[in-house]
Amino acid sequence: MNRPATPLHAPLPELAPRAIPAAFMQALQARFGSQCATAQIVREQHGRDESAYAAMPPPDAVVFAESTQDVSDALQLAHQHAVPVIAFGAGSSLEGHLLAVQGGISLDVSRMNQVLSVNADDLTVTVQAGVTRKQLNEAVKSTGLFFPIDPGADATLGGMCATRASGTNAVRYGTMRENVLALQVVMADGSVVRTGSRAKKSSAGYDLTRLMVGSEGTLGIITEVTVKLYPLPEAVSAAICSFPSIEAAVRTVIQTIQLGVPIARVELIDANSVRMVNRYAKLGLREEPLLLMEFHGSPTGVQEQAQTVQDIARELGGNDFEWASTPEERTRLWTARHNALFAAIASRPGCKAISTDTCVPISRLADCLLDSVAEADASGIPYFLVGHVGDGNFHFGYLIDPDSTDERARAEQLNQSLVQRAIQMQGTCSGEHGVGLHKMGFLLEEAGAPALAVMRAIKQALDPHNILNPGKIFSL
Amino acid sequence: MNRPATPLHAPLPELAPRAIPAAFMQALQARFGSQCATAQIVREQHGRDESAYAAMPPPDAVVFAESTQDVSDALQLAHQHAVPVIAFGAGSSLEGHLLAVQGGISLDVSRMNQVLSVNADDLTVTVQAGVTRKQLNEAVKSTGLFFPIDPGADATLGGMCATRASGTNAVRYGTMRENVLALQVVMADGSVVRTGSRAKKSSAGYDLTRLMVGSEGTLGIITEVTVKLYPLPEAVSAAICSFPSIEAAVRTVIQTIQLGVPIARVELIDANSVRMVNRYAKLGLREEPLLLMEFHGSPTGVQEQAQTVQDIARELGGNDFEWASTPEERTRLWTARHNALFAAIASRPGCKAISTDTCVPISRLADCLLDSVAEADASGIPYFLVGHVGDGNFHFGYLIDPDSTDERARAEQLNQSLVQRAIQMQGTCSGEHGVGLHKMGFLLEEAGAPALAVMRAIKQALDPHNILNPGKIFSL
Repeated sequence: MNRPATPLHAPLPELAPRAIPAAFMQALQARFGSQCATAQIVREQHGRDESAYAAMPPPDAVVFAESTQDVSDALQLAHQHAVPVIAFGAGSSLEGHLLAVQGGISLDVSRMNQVLSVNADDLTVTVQAGVTRKQLNEAVKSTGLFFPIDPGADATLGGMCATRASGTNAVRYGTMRENVLALQVVMADGSVVRTGSRAKKSSAGYDLTRLMVGSEGTLGIITEVTVKLYPLPEAVSAAICSFPSIEAAVRTVIQTIQLGVPIARVELIDANSVRMVNRYAKLGLREEPLLLMEFHGSPTGVQEQAQTVQDIARELGGNDFEWASTPEERTRLWTARHNALFAAIASRPGCKAISTDTCVPISRLADCLLDSVAEADASGIPYFLVGHVGDGNFHFGYLIDPDSTDERARAEQLNQSLVQRAIQMQGTCSGEHGVGLHKMGFLLEEAGAPALAVMRAIKQALDPHNILNPGKIFSL
Repeated sequence: MNRPATPLHAPLPELAPRAIPAAFMQALQARFGSQCATAQIVREQHGRDESAYAAMPPPDAVVFAESTQDVSDALQLAHQHAVPVIAFGAGSSLEGHLLAVQGGISLDVSRMNQVLSVNADDLTVTVQAGVTRKQLNEAVKSTGLFFPIDPGADATLGGMCATRASGTNAVRYGTMRENVLALQVVMADGSVVRTGSRAKKSSAGYDLTRLMVGSEGTLGIITEVTVKLYPLPEAVSAAICSFPSIEAAVRTVIQTIQLGVPIARVELIDANSVRMVNRYAKLGLREEPLLLMEFHGSPTGVQEQAQTVQDIARELGGNDFEWASTPEERTRLWTARHNALFAAIASRPGCKAISTDTCVPISRLADCLLDSVAEADASGIPYFLVGHVGDGNFHFGYLIDPDSTDERARAEQLNQSLVQRAIQMQGTCSGEHGVGLHKMGFLLEEAGAPALAVMRAIKQALDPHNILNPGKIFSL
């Protein structure tokens, strides 16, 4: 880490939009007919996401793929004409992944929403990339199994693969990295590749599955996804514990993890966030920092886990656990947690949220987080703080007036300071949202130039015309 | 899977040894002095492994690296002169990884055996690539943590990364794929890359860590490894359960996994293997198919798990569990399991073992395994069968007279038939040993030509002179 300090946060890359050849548009429309939209409103819907970036010119067209063949045909054309292609699922990126920085087409896979095969006896399911996490869980409900990965949004499985998503259950069940068994991917030239198998483990060749997971649409477009499922736990208990300080809450989490308690979910919600979700969802929670926890296991196992954590919490000044006694009450709490972003945005009408996403080794969590809280408090920028703290991952959302250059700059300065702190602690700039546009400078700082050179070499080998989501993750 | 049937098992590739330029050897010796050995016996030790391949000409020299700089310098020279480099750790490959099919140098990292940092508070440890799994566990013993991945041999961490190894604990703790956080890797041109961080999860760029894990020395040479550690479980119980048939044993495992019992280890040992380990280690086990199991958790949790599995076993005709009551007794049993290969080889003096390594979705385990047992029985080739059956992974070891072309051909025919069956069941030809030389034909059948083309493109981009373990995994 002795590299000279560089400006960490990259603004929008200064890439000229590419000329879209008329022959390409003609061929595209001939092939896709009404599946190809050029209406302004459709293009605009596909040229933005949940990030705080200001609007920029949208993609030149939107193709609604209905099959792998559609994706392959669109990519063959784009490859031939060197036209950018940006895969689109639910549009819930927080990092600018969907912005058409060089124009081109948005390839919307949301119509590819078939659950292809539920293999309950093997605890696996295969779906098309446009299936969302909620739809997936609905589809497997009757089997007694569930899919745990739950980013805030009801994202598509394809998008969740592409950003290596995780969420509140990752502390126990892992992230997309650990839970994807196999993929079908269309490569830049339109060739269709299957990666992995339904075997639980494999040493057969390069791990193309995990190369594609987290590649943010820059190496291929994911069309089918096979993931692991888990038996619904015999017993589930959810509890809230409020604390006199963020520090007490965080130290409770650190000790819980270090003891190896197999807690299923442990989310930090700061007092700001509690106020916001209280107002948004009429929850009436005590407006103090709190942990929202869930325990999975046998009835005795759940009791043992909860007792251990309650003991730790009490020693650190935490209050008695308040239990969510019914499944409905549990769902209400977790929905509130998932809606924290929307509650925050609603708290300052017209604002946008600049979200941070650092993740650090658990022993450094308190240091990293508390210093950043102090900086955020001092800045005067309204913010909320939530986190998958069991993994060492947390999110500040700085609520800025998007028209205020000053607020944006101050928020980005807070973000930059936090990221530098996390990297110094051997952590990462992104726990689960991906790099997109927003963290390109951070990635260079974190990974270093030699690792970036390897990533570039792979990108150039697999996408020689740089058509797949160009201008994202790193510059070429 | 509608590709035409092709001969699955590739014999040794017919690659001409490359000419080693005199200038290269001079430069190598000038740089490495006594760290560079050319004595016949040292070269021969480095040109073979635990596979059944007949001896072939050894590498032209062996370099004993003592630092990352050594590895980098050796690779820079090799890159410049297009000389093959084969990384060497403990020499325990079962698939021909270490054979110098094109000559070149063996780069032995076994002297790079420092434990660099134990971060007990984060449940991570960083070691040099030549540290073995037993050495690692010794080094962290006092922290109350352990590293669960345990291939049969006392392999090096570098080698375990390179083959994406697993072992008996994988059913609960995952494989190297899930347990490596970060690597230091020297690329073909000598550049040193750090992949990953110590954060538990990350979405920061391409997953170079997992691209390197399982790349079998063909994309880079691993010099440092950061892995996860786990708290030693509060309670551990080990039990043996013998069964009237392999089928009953296997069906017990299938139900256990489908119920989601978090069993820590569940190994199948067939009656042949029991006989062999009895003789080798004087164990006195009942010579019937058996499951060797271990349960980790709280005392109550362990009891609950064991009770569930005992109930399932009984219903399928299994005997009462016999408990290993002391840690010493447990160690004796697991050592016997780990020595099954050596026990088997000792049972037929002068023989070599051709090992299979298929892994299938758990619901297909009985079908895959039982058909293969019937074929093996009919063949007359002596064999043993052990397996990490909780993962759907098992190993036949066909004990052949290495001088008998006929026995070798019949054993390979059994292997081929098993692999085809596994692939038809959406499984894999390799659960944990890697492809090496032995499964190159199988990989093509399993992954398909488009996926192989992606692997080749990556290889060519990162190793343009094809110096890193050439002729392994796939042909160029």
